[in-house]
Amino acid sequence: MPLLTDEQIADGLHDSGWRREGDAIARDWKLDDFAGAIAFVDEVAQLAEEANHHPDILVHGWNKVRLTLSTHSEGGITAADLALAGRIDALR
Amino acid sequence: MPLLTDEQIADGLHDSGWRREGDAIARDWKLDDFAGAIAFVDEVAQLAEEANHHPDILVHGWNKVRLTLSTHSEGGITAADLALAGRIDALR
Repeated sequence: MPLLTDEQIADGLHDSGWRREGDAIARDWKLDDFAGAIAFVDEVAQLAEEANHHPDILVHGWNKVRLTLSTHSEGGITAADLALAGRIDALR
Repeated sequence: MPLLTDEQIADGLHDSGWRREGDAIARDWKLDDFAGAIAFVDEVAQLAEEANHHPDILVHGWNKVRLTLSTHSEGGITAADLALAGRIDALR
């Protein structure tokens, strides 16, 4: 799977809540409480398993979640990252 | 809830898989796969809700989990952190 160009990445992230962080894309969420954060993680995990593509997940400050996506096998950002980001955005 | 002394923290972590990281304690796990990591997170979350004490949770590299515990209201490590660490250790 080819790496995306800087322009392709910028186009893909346009109007999304995701931002580029070097070789990855990241987005932050604030949920109502810890249970809400964990429920969100479970929903994201199901999408990740379906896509066979797995974000790094940080639950912090009891109600905040940060997701980071990168295609480690390719060493950067691919269409698989943007596709999963889009599916995750549809959750909330 | 009073902060623990350095000696109390060292005693509490002795023979556990947890290490001190400044004002927090942390431990890393490696699970079989992503689904195993998420299942572990769900088990930890249930203990955290029961204790009303919430670790920071990082799922990374698809099968690794790092937990970090601190009592933010006190600005450091208290008995609540050691108690929850002990309950989590009993899971795996």
